[in-house]
Amino acid sequence: MPENERRPRLTPAVADVRRAVREATDDVPAGSLLLVALSGGADSLALAAATAFEAERAGLRAGAVIVDHGLQPGSAEIAERAAAQARELGLDPVRILAVQVAPDGSPEAAARQARYAALLQARKEEGAVAVLLGHTLDDQAETVLIGLARGSGAESLWGMHPRIGFLRRPLLQVRRATTHQACADVGIAPWHDPHNDDDRFLRVRVRHRVLPMLDDVLGGGVALALTRTADTLREDAEALAHFAQEQILDLVEHAEGGLSLDAGALAANPPALRQRIIRLAVQSEFHTALSRQQTLEVSRLVTDWHGQGPIHLPGIRVSREGRRLVFVAA
Amino acid sequence: MPENERRPRLTPAVADVRRAVREATDDVPAGSLLLVALSGGADSLALAAATAFEAERAGLRAGAVIVDHGLQPGSAEIAERAAAQARELGLDPVRILAVQVAPDGSPEAAARQARYAALLQARKEEGAVAVLLGHTLDDQAETVLIGLARGSGAESLWGMHPRIGFLRRPLLQVRRATTHQACADVGIAPWHDPHNDDDRFLRVRVRHRVLPMLDDVLGGGVALALTRTADTLREDAEALAHFAQEQILDLVEHAEGGLSLDAGALAANPPALRQRIIRLAVQSEFHTALSRQQTLEVSRLVTDWHGQGPIHLPGIRVSREGRRLVFVAA
Repeated sequence: MPENERRPRLTPAVADVRRAVREATDDVPAGSLLLVALSGGADSLALAAATAFEAERAGLRAGAVIVDHGLQPGSAEIAERAAAQARELGLDPVRILAVQVAPDGSPEAAARQARYAALLQARKEEGAVAVLLGHTLDDQAETVLIGLARGSGAESLWGMHPRIGFLRRPLLQVRRATTHQACADVGIAPWHDPHNDDDRFLRVRVRHRVLPMLDDVLGGGVALALTRTADTLREDAEALAHFAQEQILDLVEHAEGGLSLDAGALAANPPALRQRIIRLAVQSEFHTALSRQQTLEVSRLVTDWHGQGPIHLPGIRVSREGRRLVFVAA
Repeated sequence: MPENERRPRLTPAVADVRRAVREATDDVPAGSLLLVALSGGADSLALAAATAFEAERAGLRAGAVIVDHGLQPGSAEIAERAAAQARELGLDPVRILAVQVAPDGSPEAAARQARYAALLQARKEEGAVAVLLGHTLDDQAETVLIGLARGSGAESLWGMHPRIGFLRRPLLQVRRATTHQACADVGIAPWHDPHNDDDRFLRVRVRHRVLPMLDDVLGGGVALALTRTADTLREDAEALAHFAQEQILDLVEHAEGGLSLDAGALAANPPALRQRIIRLAVQSEFHTALSRQQTLEVSRLVTDWHGQGPIHLPGIRVSREGRRLVFVAA
């Protein structure tokens, strides 16, 4: 491909990706460094190209971090190739970090954990204000659907947060197809990760089998619907967390080896808030996350009080003592 | 089948359906009448059998209402057959109501509307305290999945309410297979609605194609996960509605042709609550339901105020005037 073909052309796909980056970074002070987490795949490559362009326009610096998980043969070469593409896009610094993925547990979770640790280390060492991740709307829809099917409550439906700590995900409203198109438009050849076709991964099965079939049966638009739902649920959850935080201050009394909550005030709250306050109290005092079942059991000491005995949870004893619900280490 | 084979035998399936009915009606005063909405299918027939048994035990009366939609050839005979089964189960009164389904719009929605109107009429005429509906956990999962895929916000994920007005759905925690088994165990032959195999209905496609494939890809338990998620989301939504109702009283001032809200107090609320208060204000004053997009646009007059002009919504003009957000009919 001749060099002049590699210059970014302003096509609709390129404009969409750039706009998403611009909106996700418009609060970043001039002179700051943004780091793009680059795999060499279409999503992160399109993100890197757009970030290089927008950073120059906004007076920011833009670099890239490539994490080499060492899980596939030739992973070092793939990382080198992505690094070369990043440098060609004008990103600087460009760093490759090799990580060790813990061999136990879920391989997907272990790789993710090693990756995020490396990204945060790079951010710190380079003094970047943010690390940009290339997750797209399609990734978000897959995450929501997996969470929904696992049924681990409303939290499982939030999907990935557009901005959490130093991590930002500018492309959560951008379709995967748009990032592929943007790469083609600017003449960058993305790496195709064979893991993306490996049906042993749940996410791959959801991507290639579940979402297309849902679109077929339900008449299209499912990915967009899933992500829109996740957005509103995340807002709802944040609001309830806010009220739980606010209320718990009025209800709690700390004591030797535990704490107590005002049962009457708990009872006056709607169930969703009452359960959150109970979970929050246990979390903050005992660093334990109660299940929904456990939380409902504790709730009944408030809403269905008829003199029943204490509840024994792992490491915690919960009892009703007069007007208070008492949690002590057991 | 000889008569003695038709006597209810206490199998696990029969016990599960009976327990569900008992728990859903344990607040009903002795002597009251419960009406079962009966189609003749396995779900409502199992519900009718369990209700007959539990009502007798609890000193309640139990009857049945069969709605004949007149949409299928032979629907009158099907209704008569269900009525005979209900009488044989000891239900009394047993009524058949023929309804006219409006020919326009979605046939599913029109049939549902005609059905609920007839059920509520029967409840009133017979003086029943509640009408029991046979929707199962599987129906609930289908409803949630359809709502999710349509993406009409968190509300679309609530599923059917276990108890709303005079309607109760005792079987929302019971699997469809259990109702079929319970019918077999007590020797009642359910009617098989051919509509349940008609792929033109979205619900049928979700039931026969989407849920089995989700179970296959995600490793089972999807229906249960979906309904559990719906339960927590419904609670969350109820809590936020409660706070919105509570807060709006402090923020609102009524005026000629509209109302206004305190912008500073709105701004101090989490987004989910701010948006609910705005929607609630518009709903109560103008009987209009704002979309998420419209609500966010109005919100920006509070959260991103830089002197912009009024927003024109259908029939409503929203403007920022000093410290207040003003809604007037336009």
